Amino acid sequence: MATSIRTTEKNGENPLADRGRLMVHGEDRPGIVAAVSGLLSNHGANIVSLDQYSTDHSGGRFFQRTEFHLKGFAAQREQLEQELEETLRPLGMSWRLTEAQQLKRVAVFASKMDHCLLDLLWRERRGELGMTTTMVVSNHPDLAEEVRSFGVPFFHVPVTKENKPEAERKQVELVRDNVDVVVLARYMQILTGDFLDNVGVPVINIHHSFLPAFMGANPYLKAKERGVKLIGATAHYVTEDLDEGPIIEQDVERVSHADTVTDLVRKGADVERRVLARAVGWHCEDRVFRDGNSTVVFD
Amino acid sequence: MATSIRTTEKNGENPLADRGRLMVHGEDRPGIVAAVSGLLSNHGANIVSLDQYSTDHSGGRFFQRTEFHLKGFAAQREQLEQELEETLRPLGMSWRLTEAQQLKRVAVFASKMDHCLLDLLWRERRGELGMTTTMVVSNHPDLAEEVRSFGVPFFHVPVTKENKPEAERKQVELVRDNVDVVVLARYMQILTGDFLDNVGVPVINIHHSFLPAFMGANPYLKAKERGVKLIGATAHYVTEDLDEGPIIEQDVERVSHADTVTDLVRKGADVERRVLARAVGWHCEDRVFRDGNSTVVFD
Amino acid sequence: MATSIRTTEKNGENPLADRGRLMVHGEDRPGIVAAVSGLLSNHGANIVSLDQYSTDHSGGRFFQRTEFHLKGFAAQREQLEQELEETLRPLGMSWRLTEAQQLKRVAVFASKMDHCLLDLLWRERRGELGMTTTMVVSNHPDLAEEVRSFGVPFFHVPVTKENKPEAERKQVELVRDNVDVVVLARYMQILTGDFLDNVGVPVINIHHSFLPAFMGANPYLKAKERGVKLIGATAHYVTEDLDEGPIIEQDVERVSHADTVTDLVRKGADVERRVLARAVGWHCEDRVFRDGNSTVVFD
Amino acid sequence: MATSIRTTEKNGENPLADRGRLMVHGEDRPGIVAAVSGLLSNHGANIVSLDQYSTDHSGGRFFQRTEFHLKGFAAQREQLEQELEETLRPLGMSWRLTEAQQLKRVAVFASKMDHCLLDLLWRERRGELGMTTTMVVSNHPDLAEEVRSFGVPFFHVPVTKENKPEAERKQVELVRDNVDVVVLARYMQILTGDFLDNVGVPVINIHHSFLPAFMGANPYLKAKERGVKLIGATAHYVTEDLDEGPIIEQDVERVSHADTVTDLVRKGADVERRVLARAVGWHCEDRVFRDGNSTVVFD
Repeated sequence: MATSIRTTEKNGENPLADRGRLMVHGEDRPGIVAAVSGLLSNHGANIVSLDQYSTDHSGGRFFQRTEFHLKGFAAQREQLEQELEETLRPLGMSWRLTEAQQLKRVAVFASKMDHCLLDLLWRERRGELGMTTTMVVSNHPDLAEEVRSFGVPFFHVPVTKENKPEAERKQVELVRDNVDVVVLARYMQILTGDFLDNVGVPVINIHHSFLPAFMGANPYLKAKERGVKLIGATAHYVTEDLDEGPIIEQDVERVSHADTVTDLVRKGADVERRVLARAVGWHCEDRVFRDGNSTVVFD
Repeated sequence: MATSIRTTEKNGENPLADRGRLMVHGEDRPGIVAAVSGLLSNHGANIVSLDQYSTDHSGGRFFQRTEFHLKGFAAQREQLEQELEETLRPLGMSWRLTEAQQLKRVAVFASKMDHCLLDLLWRERRGELGMTTTMVVSNHPDLAEEVRSFGVPFFHVPVTKENKPEAERKQVELVRDNVDVVVLARYMQILTGDFLDNVGVPVINIHHSFLPAFMGANPYLKAKERGVKLIGATAHYVTEDLDEGPIIEQDVERVSHADTVTDLVRKGADVERRVLARAVGWHCEDRVFRDGNSTVVFD
Repeated sequence: MATSIRTTEKNGENPLADRGRLMVHGEDRPGIVAAVSGLLSNHGANIVSLDQYSTDHSGGRFFQRTEFHLKGFAAQREQLEQELEETLRPLGMSWRLTEAQQLKRVAVFASKMDHCLLDLLWRERRGELGMTTTMVVSNHPDLAEEVRSFGVPFFHVPVTKENKPEAERKQVELVRDNVDVVVLARYMQILTGDFLDNVGVPVINIHHSFLPAFMGANPYLKAKERGVKLIGATAHYVTEDLDEGPIIEQDVERVSHADTVTDLVRKGADVERRVLARAVGWHCEDRVFRDGNSTVVFD
Repeated sequence: MATSIRTTEKNGENPLADRGRLMVHGEDRPGIVAAVSGLLSNHGANIVSLDQYSTDHSGGRFFQRTEFHLKGFAAQREQLEQELEETLRPLGMSWRLTEAQQLKRVAVFASKMDHCLLDLLWRERRGELGMTTTMVVSNHPDLAEEVRSFGVPFFHVPVTKENKPEAERKQVELVRDNVDVVVLARYMQILTGDFLDNVGVPVINIHHSFLPAFMGANPYLKAKERGVKLIGATAHYVTEDLDEGPIIEQDVERVSHADTVTDLVRKGADVERRVLARAVGWHCEDRVFRDGNSTVVFD
């Protein structure tokens, strides 16, 4: 749960300098932890935290996140990567090596509602999230000034039923190779499979959730008419199945009969911004693995 | 939230003696609160707590729960009821007067799982719930000994596809006029509309809930495959629409990828017993109004 | 829990127009609810919600909050107040009548940390809180630009050990008669009894809380060294006993061994802004009564 | 968070068979993870989950919990232990190897209140906790029948001011070498340093907690008088500093002004049993490391 990302500390030491993260996953087989930790140890790396999980003790899927400290990590990185490839490729493992200091580049997509967007920008400014918002893309111009006051570029890409393919091409153009992740902060347009295929990076979405779910239009009204006592939000990776992708984080807020539909929407907004910030923070610290349509989150 | 129901206190005074509750509801119109409180005041009653709520300031539905202290309440009760009828009938209001000391008589229906049933019996024994379990009815014999050790009668009514109508008739026979509410404590049989029509008292059910909902069989497995982070439970009044009745209470429990399906079921059980105990406690203290398919809960 | 305060709704009707609130408290005695509701009823007011609570059924303290709809409330207000005084004075009751439309005027005191301050300004802009921030007063100049971008005046009043009496006089000058409540949003100076005596309005404070408490300096470090699993925050009215005033609201956030002291502080900030926003919102909607060193909160 | 401990599963396989756990801690130094995982790998063990944490990347303290599957673990155990000693001793590491199948033997100490005790016994019966209660020791005879109905021996050891040393000797006699952990389930006697020295196993306690803390007698009354909104509980290891030992788990429950002191005590009991069950479950699955007066909990 340690998600603090300040790049300067009072004692003058940057806690992220020389800090690396290695993510490994694949079909489980004996000896992977030993191979990886042996390799890091040989390089003089000190493992600061290691989380490993297998879905089953035989024939399961293997996930490992290792955070380590290695003096002069950047200089040794290429050599390290070569050895990792030589060690892990034969074992059939996928792997990724990142530097904690390299914040993830994020494009935030928004529409008119500001609560999720502003919360992300504000937390980023406080140094809470391992990300740097390189652009905000919106189908409405309303939030331009607010966004630019944070020093972040704002791109207005209007979307209509007619221009949708063209608009998505423009969005892909803006985003592609420029960001590591797209965050939909209450972006009220459905993205097509084409967009997802072309954007080349993970897309995280936030939406309201109820127990039970209320299908179709006006879910808050339906929730009110059923007397629900909890309003929730779910952050997930976007897949072609709308709102059916792997869940990263969820939370709820208590409501009562005295809450109007407007109140429910407002309380929903509160839990949405909280859940999205946690999900994005964990993603940017490489704490989330996708496992089919599920996730493994080492928070 | 004050749901303590101990019938003896250390200072020797019974906090429930001379304690009455008046529930009023109907189409909202000006003057109801004044009429009710004036009437109680004229009888020398002291209002201890009053909760009132209208769904809209014009043309809404009106709900009021008043808890009052009235020396010699039992003796004055008949007179009070007559006056309430004379006052509230012309205003088109429904009303109910109860004595706090008269615990609600409860039939608990269970199958093989004991978690909800035992938690209710145990809380009742501690004096936490304003109820007395007058019988447990089960389609399996497994829990007989455990139930009887609490001094509560246990009736085994087997239910098969063939004998269902007959079994429900037997259940109605046991329950009718003997209890004020039926609580389904993980009773794994679907009750028919016939049962609901004939039983003559409210029926409260508990079931697992997820954000989002997972339809059909094996919801816990589906939840696991989607990576859910919260497991919930919903207590509601039973209507003919299975699991679609007015919600009384809900809560959730946090889970992670490391939880197996067995773990999810177990954590679900934990939140189920907590939610059911709260819902039953509130119902037995006359804190819950049904409002169409919704509820007003003055907790 | 209905704290929505938007002054315009989609259907064109202002939900707060003609909406009044009456707060009554004093030594409990029979007949107060009847007297108050009869009086409102005679004026044609429709009670929308009423919460009443007595600390004991005999000899206790009485608290009542009534929210009502009265066509042309503003015009009838003077007459209503006169009758309330005639009715409630002889009963020894204190009372207050407010118009929902008249937002509470708030002075926010801050120092360098922005999390509580910004969250209040942002929620106010969204119309979530029944308040209007008329000024921000700070002993540091750092947050001036941010505050003024919300269109709110910012006053820099430096405070040193030497100038403290003078600084507090200046603060009182700014605030007195201009605001209805002072909110300390992580204001890092201790206010003297003189200030509290002279300011003439309630003062709300937020501070971190732990289970158990850790006295003296560096509470987060002490909490870390004890292995605490929850970080909390408490919002309370300020009294001369530092941080010992009546509690309005509290909440907690989960932490683990992996959280550094910096993480604990950050998570503490998150729960602080949440708790303060709730406490201020309830206060501004006249939902909080002080009861000696305790509170009655009709949320 | 996966704490399910059922020893039989539907598919006939015992999930705990051949399951080992290795706990290692000491002064951090490079290469420990590699050494441990290499050793396990050489034995053909498959690591199912591994949690590692260091308090600092240089000069910190190192904690590692490894859960592994090893066909025929019991037979290889002695050999494995010898190699672990040869590998870890020179590195200055402490270590412990356990079999998941060997449930921890627990002595529960209780007085008159049954809520924590019964919840533990009931969860154990359901197979939720990795423990077997081998005895209950009480200074009162009240709970004897209830305990024995679970098939658990009950020992009544009266404690007075006069006989305390003798009573503690008797308790030590009962417990010593017979249990792996002592759980104080609302045991209302203070244990002396002598007892702690002689008992030879960890002792876990549960007690109420508040934000802020209320010192001295009648904390619930004091909490009520201050208007607290949260009632909490803390489970911790017992040290000679009463209620000041390393915290294992904490949680809270919401309360309001309408809760009487009796209600607060009852809600406190609810959170106590929940927190104690989690703490004991984690301890029995070897998930808790003591770190000075703090803890590292790999839940």
